[in-house]
Amino acid sequence: MNTFGNIFRLTSFGESHGLSIGGVIDGCPAGFELDLGSIQHELDRRKPGQSKIVTQRKESDIVEFQSGIFEGKTTGAPIGFVIKNTNQRSKDYSHIKEQFRPSHADYTYTKKYGHRDYRGGGRSSARETAARVVAGAIAKQLLASKGIEIASFVKSVGPLELNLPPEQIDTTKIDQTIIRCPNLEIAQEMITFVDKVRKEGDSIGGTIQCLIKGCPVGLGQPVFGKLHAALGSAMLSINAVKGFEYGSGFSGTKMKGSDHNDMFEKRESGVTTKTNYSGGIQGGISNGQDIYFNVAFKPVATIMQDQQSIDQEGNETLVKGKGRHDPCVLPRAVPIVDAMAAMVILDYYLLNKTTMI
Amino acid sequence: MNTFGNIFRLTSFGESHGLSIGGVIDGCPAGFELDLGSIQHELDRRKPGQSKIVTQRKESDIVEFQSGIFEGKTTGAPIGFVIKNTNQRSKDYSHIKEQFRPSHADYTYTKKYGHRDYRGGGRSSARETAARVVAGAIAKQLLASKGIEIASFVKSVGPLELNLPPEQIDTTKIDQTIIRCPNLEIAQEMITFVDKVRKEGDSIGGTIQCLIKGCPVGLGQPVFGKLHAALGSAMLSINAVKGFEYGSGFSGTKMKGSDHNDMFEKRESGVTTKTNYSGGIQGGISNGQDIYFNVAFKPVATIMQDQQSIDQEGNETLVKGKGRHDPCVLPRAVPIVDAMAAMVILDYYLLNKTTMI
Amino acid sequence: MNTFGNIFRLTSFGESHGLSIGGVIDGCPAGFELDLGSIQHELDRRKPGQSKIVTQRKESDIVEFQSGIFEGKTTGAPIGFVIKNTNQRSKDYSHIKEQFRPSHADYTYTKKYGHRDYRGGGRSSARETAARVVAGAIAKQLLASKGIEIASFVKSVGPLELNLPPEQIDTTKIDQTIIRCPNLEIAQEMITFVDKVRKEGDSIGGTIQCLIKGCPVGLGQPVFGKLHAALGSAMLSINAVKGFEYGSGFSGTKMKGSDHNDMFEKRESGVTTKTNYSGGIQGGISNGQDIYFNVAFKPVATIMQDQQSIDQEGNETLVKGKGRHDPCVLPRAVPIVDAMAAMVILDYYLLNKTTMI
Amino acid sequence: MNTFGNIFRLTSFGESHGLSIGGVIDGCPAGFELDLGSIQHELDRRKPGQSKIVTQRKESDIVEFQSGIFEGKTTGAPIGFVIKNTNQRSKDYSHIKEQFRPSHADYTYTKKYGHRDYRGGGRSSARETAARVVAGAIAKQLLASKGIEIASFVKSVGPLELNLPPEQIDTTKIDQTIIRCPNLEIAQEMITFVDKVRKEGDSIGGTIQCLIKGCPVGLGQPVFGKLHAALGSAMLSINAVKGFEYGSGFSGTKMKGSDHNDMFEKRESGVTTKTNYSGGIQGGISNGQDIYFNVAFKPVATIMQDQQSIDQEGNETLVKGKGRHDPCVLPRAVPIVDAMAAMVILDYYLLNKTTMI
Repeated sequence: MNTFGNIFRLTSFGESHGLSIGGVIDGCPAGFELDLGSIQHELDRRKPGQSKIVTQRKESDIVEFQSGIFEGKTTGAPIGFVIKNTNQRSKDYSHIKEQFRPSHADYTYTKKYGHRDYRGGGRSSARETAARVVAGAIAKQLLASKGIEIASFVKSVGPLELNLPPEQIDTTKIDQTIIRCPNLEIAQEMITFVDKVRKEGDSIGGTIQCLIKGCPVGLGQPVFGKLHAALGSAMLSINAVKGFEYGSGFSGTKMKGSDHNDMFEKRESGVTTKTNYSGGIQGGISNGQDIYFNVAFKPVATIMQDQQSIDQEGNETLVKGKGRHDPCVLPRAVPIVDAMAAMVILDYYLLNKTTMI
Repeated sequence: MNTFGNIFRLTSFGESHGLSIGGVIDGCPAGFELDLGSIQHELDRRKPGQSKIVTQRKESDIVEFQSGIFEGKTTGAPIGFVIKNTNQRSKDYSHIKEQFRPSHADYTYTKKYGHRDYRGGGRSSARETAARVVAGAIAKQLLASKGIEIASFVKSVGPLELNLPPEQIDTTKIDQTIIRCPNLEIAQEMITFVDKVRKEGDSIGGTIQCLIKGCPVGLGQPVFGKLHAALGSAMLSINAVKGFEYGSGFSGTKMKGSDHNDMFEKRESGVTTKTNYSGGIQGGISNGQDIYFNVAFKPVATIMQDQQSIDQEGNETLVKGKGRHDPCVLPRAVPIVDAMAAMVILDYYLLNKTTMI
Repeated sequence: MNTFGNIFRLTSFGESHGLSIGGVIDGCPAGFELDLGSIQHELDRRKPGQSKIVTQRKESDIVEFQSGIFEGKTTGAPIGFVIKNTNQRSKDYSHIKEQFRPSHADYTYTKKYGHRDYRGGGRSSARETAARVVAGAIAKQLLASKGIEIASFVKSVGPLELNLPPEQIDTTKIDQTIIRCPNLEIAQEMITFVDKVRKEGDSIGGTIQCLIKGCPVGLGQPVFGKLHAALGSAMLSINAVKGFEYGSGFSGTKMKGSDHNDMFEKRESGVTTKTNYSGGIQGGISNGQDIYFNVAFKPVATIMQDQQSIDQEGNETLVKGKGRHDPCVLPRAVPIVDAMAAMVILDYYLLNKTTMI
Repeated sequence: MNTFGNIFRLTSFGESHGLSIGGVIDGCPAGFELDLGSIQHELDRRKPGQSKIVTQRKESDIVEFQSGIFEGKTTGAPIGFVIKNTNQRSKDYSHIKEQFRPSHADYTYTKKYGHRDYRGGGRSSARETAARVVAGAIAKQLLASKGIEIASFVKSVGPLELNLPPEQIDTTKIDQTIIRCPNLEIAQEMITFVDKVRKEGDSIGGTIQCLIKGCPVGLGQPVFGKLHAALGSAMLSINAVKGFEYGSGFSGTKMKGSDHNDMFEKRESGVTTKTNYSGGIQGGISNGQDIYFNVAFKPVATIMQDQQSIDQEGNETLVKGKGRHDPCVLPRAVPIVDAMAAMVILDYYLLNKTTMI
């Protein structure tokens, strides 16, 4: 199941240490003039080595389009692309060839498939998300042409949280810090915290919030393709994600209906709601208000500490902590959340065209 | 998008006030002897009127199988079924014919589809989940034949929470109270609380936890069909659900990797992990430990209080609080969570058979 | 795989001798006013007992819609429907309970699924096509609202063939005879021929041609969803179908390119082609010319003659020829071909809306 | 719709004159040791320039696997691959930049997508089938490991036909001639004929027959996924294909049931049928007999003669006959038919594993 989407569909391939990773984008609307620079820009936001608080691996992550674009415009044919893997140090992984790293996919992949590509996590590596970023960047451009803007940011790192209502977030500040939290003060605290965690050889989790503005009323396909179900599935497919909530989310479970219901109001600009506990989605369909949701990331499993584990024969063993890894994936995960959200929204935008004949 | 699943697939139909609701189950394994009584039992757990703390509508909710079963056994042909709607009072809804109830799907359905069946919420009514319970009950039986058990329970109602680790839950006590919380003391508090909310004409949210025991290693389809992504999508497709988390979930975002990683251990029974923050899933594939996840339900939007809103022409209006509704959907949602979980697990169990030739 | 289509999707259920057959239509455009009478009319064209040359079973075949239609119009919700089985004589089939009828699906169903519903062929009975006719009749109405007309007719029965180019077919005459061949003279010969075959207790095959007029340029989804590939798959899924060809078809294999190429011409009405060997489809996409294709039906396997066969234990046995059956399925298959063609064209019409943003 | 298959799925990309063509194979069973040489061998059977009767373009068509294979074995991860385009002469096509070649996809692609990659036919070029051959070659190996053999051959070229029952075909002789007809005498006549057509600057059609031996009983997914419907759809998706028939096909339409029915027989080797008009498939499910079907190819549209046509503005124009093209695609289409058949059979083989729990 390496295909995502219904109409706008990404099929991805690639392992951490293969020749390349890449994908095929099918169903991309035709005749659209792509800004290739901004696709590369999104990849750069995700790439390793971009700051001191992420992994120091150096991958150039240059996307090479193979098809589906002619004279700068999409043709309706599938867009094939590859990103060459350039900086693998496969030997870094020889020590785990026969070991299962705790809370990694080593054990489950081996049991499911009979053997595994142990180099860098193989297919289970978050490296595959680079392909998502390419497709998502294309989706983002198409949506922008319709006035739909998607912006994700780091809302919390460990115990440090930016606690602001979505409408007060200044999304222009997201990329002003290497942690990608739009409050510069909290951002600085987060950076200091991650740096400390890194020095301990440890890792830390956090949450990303995604804001979608300008989404028209009507996106969503009841009953199994509710818009938030598609968004949730998309987010949960990202490496290290443990939870998803939209609108009031888990905190809404403690509220009473009389407080939680979003009263409709008539304004000059059209119908709106006084509050937005619904998170812009009612009955699985966008209602024209801002869509927002939170995504929970666990602390990455790779740490620079030795850990007790077992090997392929089931014997106890010690897994060494070494290599080049992220103490906190959140900053690099921001463009991935953007990408997945963009793909879902575009897919549903296109699906919605088939609602009436 | 009224079809759910890949191999074991439910396609459902039906509105709150149509002739019937029902569905078609395709891909159900052949030659399996069904216990029809236990399917009806699951429907009874979901049906209205079963206790004083749920809606007092009386629907008999009798499932009538039309096809796919011969001499008591599944034939491999699609299983069609209908549940007749018997106790609709469509006139109860004439007052909202031209009004949009706050935080309901009235507005979004009307805008998306041009008009709507306003009686009882039409397709957006949680009544459609009865079809899910039928399919889920069949999936549950098939899984039980392989030693896989699924049990959900009410973990919290508003501020009241059963805070126990999954392995300490006594699932045999779930149905001992009408609230379906397996701790009888907390259950009683919850019941009292819901009753109070009901008398106020209000509603309250809560969370359901689902436990899956006996799941073999290997279920899950990376990278977009990770087991938890499929479970999340399934849960988020249930009416009133606002969030999903598995294993350590949102609380795991505050942990460090050195605390969060689940160390492998060798026991006589096989490989296990000391802790289970992973929630039984690593890299999107089940690892043989217990799977557990939480589902957040908002307070239902229908309350017995008048609320400000707008009508189809965009004019302000007052929506009257009347009819027969649930102050808290949690107890009736337990079998729905069970059903969706069972469908996902069975679907992935079948998919997993294709991993090797 | 009892679901057909991508956007406009039919999921069908039902066996020859179950309680009912029926289906769920998902993705039907919303807000369309249905003519229920003409849906029933298409079912009547398919139903048994309508003339002396078809099976004398009497099924009233009344469709009962359960959902998805409100105040006469489609709501965008799935359209569930059932057709009750009323005239089964299950005892007619007790003699084949343990026998495999030659060239039927008895043997393959038993081997694949472990057991089978032997009454009337169970799921392999062409009775399931009634569900297709319902969905197809709805698709036909939607297409007619866009000026797209579909008309199939019997082109040959055994050696008797109406050999006219598609543009010379008078589709208004199709239903003027019980054989549904629009040339009344050849139709009469065909009727006499089928009647003779019937008296011999035998059966005969034939071909149906389908004409689609008014199809806009642009329907078709390269490379695996070419319009003719979708039509071919649809036709080959109909019981007793052995072949499909469009445009010049098999006879085109004997032509040279210089004769076969359709030269473009500019006319006042727009672009057209001098000839139409392409059958209205070039590169898998409709080109605005008439679409036409032929469907080959084998002689039905049920004959009123005793036949040598084997039973479930593998022993040789004699299968008795008895019951009520069609000597020639062609006349009743005409509305089924119409239905499948209509579903494909509507599905692709809707898909085509997603080509541009 | 550039994805083919349900479990074993190929998603392809690439135009005639882009950087590369390629694809992603998802769902390939894990742990299988691939013979990369025999994949390249199948590509060589399809490649241009292999003999005097095919196009003299020279493409080396070397497949480069990017992922999904580790230490020689499939890992269960998607198999990405690219085939670089090396010998495009894009200038050869500048003359048709604004012209629509008769019976090509130029006109329909332009109308559907707004513009087109005119170089070498772009996505509508049969060059994309190289990706199918790669995936099909892998499928063929997996099937061979289960004793299932697939062999296609040229059955007719224009009026010249090899008229032998399938069981008398000596498949070892297929590749002994450049035309790929296993009767050496008729093969020679065909070669002479094609060479004459080539010298005339013309093209000619023909038919390919595919034989599948060793297929177990039970493959096929009623009612819309009948085995022959899947095979038909696969074949009709190949460039230039106009028709598909299996078993008795179109000729069976002239037979009576008493002649056409395949009588079951008990032999030491198991159940068999005296005749095989069913073509190895009954009720859409394989019955263990040889599967065979015919595929009709039209004469290719590109000829070395000037043809009347129109341009993008709708004005009449003359399309020049020039470039390097196939007078007859049949010999090169043989491995493509093999490939598509292999993908279908493997896909259904895997699906069949889910029939029972």
